[in-house]
Amino acid sequence: MSTNIFKPKPVSGFPEWLPEERLVEQRWFDHIRKTFESYGFCNIETPSVEEIDVLLAKGEVDKEIYEIKRLHTEEEEKKEGRLALHFDQTVPFARYTAQHFNDLVFPFKRYQMQRVWRGERPQMGRMREFYQCDIDVINIDNLPLAFDAEIPAVIYEVLAGLEIGRVQIRISNRKILLGLLEALNIEDTVSITRIIDKIEKLERAQIKQLLKDEKLNDDQIASIIQLAETKGSVDVIKNINAQNNTMREGVEELSFVLDHLAHLPNHAMIGDLSIVRGLDYYTGTVYETQLLDVPEFTGSVCSGGRYDDLASQYINKKLPGVGISIGFSRLFDVMRQSRPDLLNIGPKSPTDILLYTEDTALTVELTQAAQTLRQRGFNVEQYHTVKKWEKHLKYTEKKQIPFIGYIKQSGTFEVKNTETGEQANADPASWTAS
Amino acid sequence: MSTNIFKPKPVSGFPEWLPEERLVEQRWFDHIRKTFESYGFCNIETPSVEEIDVLLAKGEVDKEIYEIKRLHTEEEEKKEGRLALHFDQTVPFARYTAQHFNDLVFPFKRYQMQRVWRGERPQMGRMREFYQCDIDVINIDNLPLAFDAEIPAVIYEVLAGLEIGRVQIRISNRKILLGLLEALNIEDTVSITRIIDKIEKLERAQIKQLLKDEKLNDDQIASIIQLAETKGSVDVIKNINAQNNTMREGVEELSFVLDHLAHLPNHAMIGDLSIVRGLDYYTGTVYETQLLDVPEFTGSVCSGGRYDDLASQYINKKLPGVGISIGFSRLFDVMRQSRPDLLNIGPKSPTDILLYTEDTALTVELTQAAQTLRQRGFNVEQYHTVKKWEKHLKYTEKKQIPFIGYIKQSGTFEVKNTETGEQANADPASWTAS
Repeated sequence: MSTNIFKPKPVSGFPEWLPEERLVEQRWFDHIRKTFESYGFCNIETPSVEEIDVLLAKGEVDKEIYEIKRLHTEEEEKKEGRLALHFDQTVPFARYTAQHFNDLVFPFKRYQMQRVWRGERPQMGRMREFYQCDIDVINIDNLPLAFDAEIPAVIYEVLAGLEIGRVQIRISNRKILLGLLEALNIEDTVSITRIIDKIEKLERAQIKQLLKDEKLNDDQIASIIQLAETKGSVDVIKNINAQNNTMREGVEELSFVLDHLAHLPNHAMIGDLSIVRGLDYYTGTVYETQLLDVPEFTGSVCSGGRYDDLASQYINKKLPGVGISIGFSRLFDVMRQSRPDLLNIGPKSPTDILLYTEDTALTVELTQAAQTLRQRGFNVEQYHTVKKWEKHLKYTEKKQIPFIGYIKQSGTFEVKNTETGEQANADPASWTAS
Repeated sequence: MSTNIFKPKPVSGFPEWLPEERLVEQRWFDHIRKTFESYGFCNIETPSVEEIDVLLAKGEVDKEIYEIKRLHTEEEEKKEGRLALHFDQTVPFARYTAQHFNDLVFPFKRYQMQRVWRGERPQMGRMREFYQCDIDVINIDNLPLAFDAEIPAVIYEVLAGLEIGRVQIRISNRKILLGLLEALNIEDTVSITRIIDKIEKLERAQIKQLLKDEKLNDDQIASIIQLAETKGSVDVIKNINAQNNTMREGVEELSFVLDHLAHLPNHAMIGDLSIVRGLDYYTGTVYETQLLDVPEFTGSVCSGGRYDDLASQYINKKLPGVGISIGFSRLFDVMRQSRPDLLNIGPKSPTDILLYTEDTALTVELTQAAQTLRQRGFNVEQYHTVKKWEKHLKYTEKKQIPFIGYIKQSGTFEVKNTETGEQANADPASWTAS
């Protein structure tokens, strides 16, 4: 054994889970994937890296980027483009669509569940590597509004299935606020939407002050805040006093989306005009999502919206779309730390049955029994160490394996339910996986 | 639209697949995972990065490493350890085991299917980012030899299930060659095993010359080459003339492993003394795997073996183990390019049924039908664009969606098999997913 031991410690911002936690994470991923696919979304994966020029094609990004460099860079490589880890899945999706445009069928419905990297400052306790789960639908030139209603329907099914309490998707349409600003003759819409985006984090007086700083008068401020405070069912939205065509379009679109989600539980959807999303990227419907029963989770679990143009920086095509992104790892980590009751962490392995024998002459028979059980859908582990019954029981206990089976003499199998202690003789060929 | 278009191109060594190819890749991953779990292996994932000191704890590695650096590094970060992308899953697994030692149950059976990165020179056409699928069993102090037989049984089931033709796992035991070198009084065993490792790439005369360069005499060379040329069933192995205890132990272990795999098809396993694996890491059983029906795939699909000590550089515990690693992405890519017939690439999406109506008044009914079908296990896509029947047919054709269903008037569903053209009325609530 080496005497020079390098004792490893966790690297801040790069989380990893124990096997029993990972089993739950896998269950979550499986459920999300199954739901996405049940709506016809196909999966893609892109490389973890893009050329830096691709990542910055839209201009400087406000996210911290990790560049990658070979430890021993050679001369020849310097000719190549600089590479960096992607910080989201939208830029790679846009690049992918442009690059493979002729091989894709539109409308293109894709989901993507990969790791992304952000060079956050370590002391902020933020994750630097995490999973996102994204869905987007894009089309050439036009995309029906019905997809704006489909996206939250998918997301509601995804989140409800994770059993993390009640989920509420808050929906707005940026055209309503933008229409109002137009009606109020306010031109710097970007600054104003960024202020409204902070409406939940700041006091009302602070918001008013920020709007005042933008040289808005009291009437303008009152109108804007009144609109941003509008929230409720589709009837509330339909009652909004639309002052021009842009507002009217926004109200109609938002009403259409809410009308199409009427089949969901009451708490699931709410029209909420305070949702604007800071990004100028979105042009119509916008979404944020709140966990109503997990106050420990602050902010939005998943957010997104409608955009006019996915990939114009890479291809000369108009590709409008609508999409949403689940911040998977943060959600999982918050639940893991603050609500283990909901996470339902169980066994340390996928094993259903542990098989063993104390008689090495019966090993071949045991291996055959294991194979029979696997073919019948069970996950079966053979405990190869020849030890006493108690040792095996301790192992199954620690791993929470539900059944233990053993052969004492050729042809006889004994099975024990490790939880109830119930014991029975049984022929493996007749067992059925539940 | 932007007039300043940055046309993206593929980045050498970082492959990505089209949706229809990714569907097959997902099928492969699902099968591999299911098989691993059926043997009781649990999954872990580690971060993509480790501290460089962790990666280099065993000394310089011969693989090219990618270091990651924030684009705008700030003063504070310089105090942190340097980070790099992992180049395999063994080092992270060792580090993980040391770090979480007290939370794990031994024997610890884990599988890991993640991306790894190697800073290969671009002109070599090698992948710089690819998936590996690893299984390992480790235990404290001792690990039964039966696991050396379990590993190839799992791998055979995995590879046979991918339907890529006949697979042959070639098994040896390093103790046999090391014992012979001991008997021949040859001390520099590392150099000799590295030469034998090249036996399939070089001419026999070249191998002899290399051994001569190591100052071996003709008798020694003849003995070594005779041993390295030994291959066949367990009977051939049992006939090896063991000249000392080390050789005898190796022959017994290899015979035990082959005996325990007797239930597999004849071609599946072969004892093959030319397999030594260049790495000094391995101490007993070693594996390589060949695709007998795909000559386009050169070298070993998956390799591994028995080691004495997984993590002694990180923890003061003796952790012997046995494991194997599938070079997933290279296998998938070779099959994709040279044997698409075996890969069986099909539809561009997971959709089973495309639903639509030309009458917007029936949209709610259509959405309900879609939901009913999803609950019955189908993947259902709604075509929201109101267009003519022909347009929908073209879309389903391009995506190879097997069924198309539509509502002409309330309460009547018509379903068409897009391949046979067969058409029928049907109630979605009575459909069953095959």
